[in-house]
Amino acid sequence: MPDVIVIGAGFSGLEAARRLAGDHEVVVLEARERAGGRTLTHSFANGDETDLGGQWVGPGQDRLYALIAAMGFGTYPLWDDGDHLVQAGGLKRYRGTIPNLSIPVLLDLNRALSRFEAMARQLDPAAPWTHPKAQEWDRMTVADFLKRHAFTARAREMFTIGIGAVFCAEPHELSLLHALFYARSGRSLDALLSVTGGAQQDRVHGGMGALAGAVAASLGDRVRYGEPVQEIGWDPTGVTVTTRRQSWRAKRVILAIPPSRALGINFDPALPSRRDALWRRMPAGACIKCVAQYDRPFWREAGLSGQAVGGKLAVRVTFDNTEQGKAAGQLLGFIEGEEARRWSEVPADTRRDAVLDAFAGFFGEEARTPIDYADKDWTSDPWTRGCYASVLGTGVWTALGQDLRKPLGPIHVAGTETAIHGFGYIEGALEAGARAADEVRAALA
Amino acid sequence: MPDVIVIGAGFSGLEAARRLAGDHEVVVLEARERAGGRTLTHSFANGDETDLGGQWVGPGQDRLYALIAAMGFGTYPLWDDGDHLVQAGGLKRYRGTIPNLSIPVLLDLNRALSRFEAMARQLDPAAPWTHPKAQEWDRMTVADFLKRHAFTARAREMFTIGIGAVFCAEPHELSLLHALFYARSGRSLDALLSVTGGAQQDRVHGGMGALAGAVAASLGDRVRYGEPVQEIGWDPTGVTVTTRRQSWRAKRVILAIPPSRALGINFDPALPSRRDALWRRMPAGACIKCVAQYDRPFWREAGLSGQAVGGKLAVRVTFDNTEQGKAAGQLLGFIEGEEARRWSEVPADTRRDAVLDAFAGFFGEEARTPIDYADKDWTSDPWTRGCYASVLGTGVWTALGQDLRKPLGPIHVAGTETAIHGFGYIEGALEAGARAADEVRAALA
Repeated sequence: MPDVIVIGAGFSGLEAARRLAGDHEVVVLEARERAGGRTLTHSFANGDETDLGGQWVGPGQDRLYALIAAMGFGTYPLWDDGDHLVQAGGLKRYRGTIPNLSIPVLLDLNRALSRFEAMARQLDPAAPWTHPKAQEWDRMTVADFLKRHAFTARAREMFTIGIGAVFCAEPHELSLLHALFYARSGRSLDALLSVTGGAQQDRVHGGMGALAGAVAASLGDRVRYGEPVQEIGWDPTGVTVTTRRQSWRAKRVILAIPPSRALGINFDPALPSRRDALWRRMPAGACIKCVAQYDRPFWREAGLSGQAVGGKLAVRVTFDNTEQGKAAGQLLGFIEGEEARRWSEVPADTRRDAVLDAFAGFFGEEARTPIDYADKDWTSDPWTRGCYASVLGTGVWTALGQDLRKPLGPIHVAGTETAIHGFGYIEGALEAGARAADEVRAALA
Repeated sequence: MPDVIVIGAGFSGLEAARRLAGDHEVVVLEARERAGGRTLTHSFANGDETDLGGQWVGPGQDRLYALIAAMGFGTYPLWDDGDHLVQAGGLKRYRGTIPNLSIPVLLDLNRALSRFEAMARQLDPAAPWTHPKAQEWDRMTVADFLKRHAFTARAREMFTIGIGAVFCAEPHELSLLHALFYARSGRSLDALLSVTGGAQQDRVHGGMGALAGAVAASLGDRVRYGEPVQEIGWDPTGVTVTTRRQSWRAKRVILAIPPSRALGINFDPALPSRRDALWRRMPAGACIKCVAQYDRPFWREAGLSGQAVGGKLAVRVTFDNTEQGKAAGQLLGFIEGEEARRWSEVPADTRRDAVLDAFAGFFGEEARTPIDYADKDWTSDPWTRGCYASVLGTGVWTALGQDLRKPLGPIHVAGTETAIHGFGYIEGALEAGARAADEVRAALA
């Protein structure tokens, strides 16, 4: 009988297992035939790689940098040279984080952003519900905040695109308190929106999904694939975990899957009302990640960075995702929020055409003729059901947030949605995995 | 091989089965060992009955009255004589639907209610997203509406209690569009809040849960108990439904369970993104229904109706639930919204004391000494997970509502949450069951 069963071989579950494996017998049960969860490295036909899931690491994400180094992987900066583009009543070039808009719009956007950051800084990311205004902010949406603090339509649109890029959701879906917490948890909204110096600064040679694969490989046959968990039973003597294939018995369980997936497991005894209600109010955002590969990064020849924002087409945020040291160029685009769910139900070819159409709108006709293309619709992936992370609506944090990290008897809860720092990021997945491992270690001591 | 498998033996599934059973081979798979879903009739020690789930029928609920008559059951009016009580800075008596408050508060409350009703009347309950202001209203919460249209603290409190009584949720959790739709779907907010002439007008002799049991009995061994569905697979030739016990094959499926439960089923192929996203955004409200039985309805002797509203204790809404023709009296109280989830995790005795404490606050010390007591915590029931019905937050109706009733290939969707008239009520469950049966009949013709 293993001491611990970890459910989910994403970064959070892998980190928990890695920390416990030296002293305890650990089994990791993974539903898929691969490790990595919401990260996924794809090989193009020519052998180049790209990440179709979480891919970035940036300043302050010390756990992830340490893991990358420990596993012998290297990082390189995302291409961030040249002019960025903004579609705002015509395509304009700009540099830095804030697009080149008219002075009144810039002032308006800057004031709203500053206000947001100042509010976020006041929160304790370990307990956002303790802020004196927590109830007030949790009963407002980000759309309410924008109504109050941004006055020009263009500033609201730009803020909305930023929110879309960070949350894969619309401002009116998000509790303001959740958005503020999320920014605080990830240092600041500016950090979450930035490339150099921010959360999109560096990529991993070989791919982030490949890193997860390497961690899983280092755990050897402790990781069991194709074992989707159907039921978790617990009693004073331990835990029984039943997968489609077999039953496992252990002393402790670490649940390292998204809340939306946890609802697919039958708990016996049933989950307490508050935990069940919390998880039911943590649906994920919606995202389709799209990468087109070109014979060369042709946009750089025009002095463009590959970063673009805005417009009304399927893709409203792009990056130059070219692998360092490779000849072929990569353009990365995100389809987000309601658009993602709409494009999820469209045939692959039509979606590809729409993505290339958006790329051409930013970078010219050459964008229509990639040498390869790949995308990943995370909204329809049955083991993830949305990305990047849970989106909390009004009232959830203040009513139920205090239960987020509480163990359920011998069941410990990990996953990026339980992180204090880096909620929604790989960094948070690692923090949560480490914290759950500490809990289990203490419980078994 | 049956033609149709109905999943769920609540009123919706039973109605679908009843309509199809004459012409088609039908099997009803029920997870529990009983029929009735969110209705449940309980026998007190002395043999008297009470309903611990849905229990009422009122004007406009023609399908339910017809079913009651068809099954040979009778109805009787809920006790509605005497003075009602409102706790509003002291206990006051009143008559009618609107409590006896100060003139400014009454005017304020009346204006807010009228405004709400006028907005609700404009909606098409079959397609609330088509209203010109649907987006605007769907991005507001009911709390936003109250901020705009009610100006006194007491009027807001009373409106909030009304919302709690109807939705088992707090105003800031609810999309305004959803609340307006819900009122329209059930005729009007006034109807949903009223006893005589409204949705709480009549009870059923023997109990509403007993009526469900009788319908189930009339279907004979078509209804299979203890068969919780784990997986639904579908392909061009039909459907495979796998329960904990066995696999069933059929031409069509009718899914007649709450959306929150449907998320516990593994669909193969996986659900389309939009349907999955919709169901994940339909968590149920929270409710504990509490009934104390007394040797006689002693409050009537003081000229009281047994109906009370307000206060800060666990129970803020009560009714005289006495069975017609029985000597013993019954007081019914609801614990709702966040309070319900809080009291869900408290030992049964402590909760009972808190309920009796609230009853005593309204009806005097005699309320502390019932001859029997029963309650039902629907938030912790693993096959329901909340009551009365799904609560839709901001943005859900306009983004995803159009998919609510769409069949998924050979899988037809029933349940009160798919009703046009009577969403959240037994009446809506019957409408949805009948509509799904019509769809299946047409598909099999």
